[in-house]
Amino acid sequence: MIDYIGVSDLERLVRAIGTGSFIERLSTEIESDYRRWDEFEKTPRSASHSPVGVIELMPITDGRLYTFKYVNGHPKNTSEGLLTVTAFGVLADVHTGYPLLLSELTVTTALRTAAMSVLAARWMARSDSRVMALIGNGAQAEFQAIGFHRMLGIRTLRVYDVDPVATAKLERNLRSIAEVAGLEVVRCGSAAEACRGADIVTTVTADKKNAVILTPDMIEPGMHLNAVGGDCPGKTELHRDILLAPNARVVVEFEPQSRIEGELQQLPDDFRVTEFADVVRGSARGRAGPDEVTIFDSVGFALEDYSALRFLHSLLAADTAGRRQIDLLPELVDPKDLFGGTIGATAAVRIRRAG
Amino acid sequence: MIDYIGVSDLERLVRAIGTGSFIERLSTEIESDYRRWDEFEKTPRSASHSPVGVIELMPITDGRLYTFKYVNGHPKNTSEGLLTVTAFGVLADVHTGYPLLLSELTVTTALRTAAMSVLAARWMARSDSRVMALIGNGAQAEFQAIGFHRMLGIRTLRVYDVDPVATAKLERNLRSIAEVAGLEVVRCGSAAEACRGADIVTTVTADKKNAVILTPDMIEPGMHLNAVGGDCPGKTELHRDILLAPNARVVVEFEPQSRIEGELQQLPDDFRVTEFADVVRGSARGRAGPDEVTIFDSVGFALEDYSALRFLHSLLAADTAGRRQIDLLPELVDPKDLFGGTIGATAAVRIRRAG
Repeated sequence: MIDYIGVSDLERLVRAIGTGSFIERLSTEIESDYRRWDEFEKTPRSASHSPVGVIELMPITDGRLYTFKYVNGHPKNTSEGLLTVTAFGVLADVHTGYPLLLSELTVTTALRTAAMSVLAARWMARSDSRVMALIGNGAQAEFQAIGFHRMLGIRTLRVYDVDPVATAKLERNLRSIAEVAGLEVVRCGSAAEACRGADIVTTVTADKKNAVILTPDMIEPGMHLNAVGGDCPGKTELHRDILLAPNARVVVEFEPQSRIEGELQQLPDDFRVTEFADVVRGSARGRAGPDEVTIFDSVGFALEDYSALRFLHSLLAADTAGRRQIDLLPELVDPKDLFGGTIGATAAVRIRRAG
Repeated sequence: MIDYIGVSDLERLVRAIGTGSFIERLSTEIESDYRRWDEFEKTPRSASHSPVGVIELMPITDGRLYTFKYVNGHPKNTSEGLLTVTAFGVLADVHTGYPLLLSELTVTTALRTAAMSVLAARWMARSDSRVMALIGNGAQAEFQAIGFHRMLGIRTLRVYDVDPVATAKLERNLRSIAEVAGLEVVRCGSAAEACRGADIVTTVTADKKNAVILTPDMIEPGMHLNAVGGDCPGKTELHRDILLAPNARVVVEFEPQSRIEGELQQLPDDFRVTEFADVVRGSARGRAGPDEVTIFDSVGFALEDYSALRFLHSLLAADTAGRRQIDLLPELVDPKDLFGGTIGATAAVRIRRAG
């Protein structure tokens, strides 16, 4: 039997500690894993592209635990009433090769993406940041809002989406959450209007194309850009001149992956970037001064899912009442007797009894 | 909700039609998928090696369905009461990216490996083959025995394992199965003795090393060798001179993978081999004459797991009573409202009621 966290279990686990607290604790776990960056075997994700989307497998290991995430990205799904991104993942023991936990990661990916965004902003944004633009008000918007309000002290959220229904949904949800009661939400008529006066600009749009959500005229010195939505080949959100500006500093998760999937895909291979692991380990700076435009070119890296699966598994220890398990693996008295211990069992037992 | 086949479900599905029939039907499915070889996007497996074993992800797609298998290989596991190989897999819809089925694949891998072995032997072994040596009597042995008895008319099985307990287990299990009532089992004292008079030699040993289970002196003209156990880097079973013999013909599943993982790893890169897909499609021969020594250098390819997952999913249609589903994915009224449809739901409902 292996542990199982379905959507209903994840809901129970998050509600037990609160969304903001979950994001904050997960962000601590992610940071501690980035500090031991060199211990991880980092493999490029395996991606299978089709005309309508992509299915990816994202494995990683530190030699003790192994995790992988299955994740799809299908922008047209929402028009069919389906999610753009769904995901699940597995935590396994490297010593035995046995899976330990199967978990939903659709909701968890939104939580860990917010946790990673806020974590990066802690190292990169100006510490007096209070106003955030949130452009793209879809599936991930609430998670970003809750995380930035709790951990970075964001007081004002300037929201915009090409789809006003998405913005209305975001406003409705934020009004219902006690954790963000102190957060003022300002609806804006354009991305440019949302950026006006913002200390941090978070972009979480979904279209699979080279979009230009942000242009250089919207950028002010000292801003931190949290570019979440440009996360696969052919999908970007920032005008390339924003990245090329002399006062810009670009931080990525895992450089080889970001060159293919991130905003970086618009730039030559020798464009200089900093890996986030070097920032948390003190060998590089997240921000060199108050006027720099810091850009977290986030694509989502397997290490963050590793942290999330490890964190979820740790929560199960205290979840005795709700804990579920599934029979994904055979449990055999004799490990060499796969047949007799499974499909052959009834026949064997019958014979022994008859004899 | 997605379909779920745990170990108990797999047992029920196999018992409902019989092990031999399951292997035979699966073998038909595998053959039909090999016939459309060019439709598949074939990706090398993603392997994570540790000092004690390997964890692999094996994805494949034909543009309509996508599957992957998680599989470990840990030879030392049996000494800890655990299986050497465990596996599970997922079948997904390429159009939406949504997983459709999560299934155990530990038992299924043994069934599909036997199905593939017998399928290859049908194209490669002499049609008058009646005697098979079965060297390695561990977890996969019964499946091979049942498959070859049913589909190839094997009447005598000459069995050998370095561990006599494994052989005793195999004999006990085979005696309990009505499907192999006509199969004579001869216990042998060595691999060489097992090979004596055999038409087919099947090797399914587990040690992760360059072993020499078969040497050239054991090989007779006209034999078919079904080399199953040499299936990862550093793990082989055949003396290389067997492969290099002038009357030898080597067939593999997917050449780029077999060069790294199969018996082929002992030979130079230009050693000529035939892909099985060319045999089933008629562009190459599985056997050119009665004196050839045909060698199926089997490592297991993702296409066979694709066939198995597709076949298992088709069986669920008639399994209405037993069919299980799990909540691995959120089901949302509004696909853009991930938060409000999951962890935010209670709060939102509470507010709406209060309002």
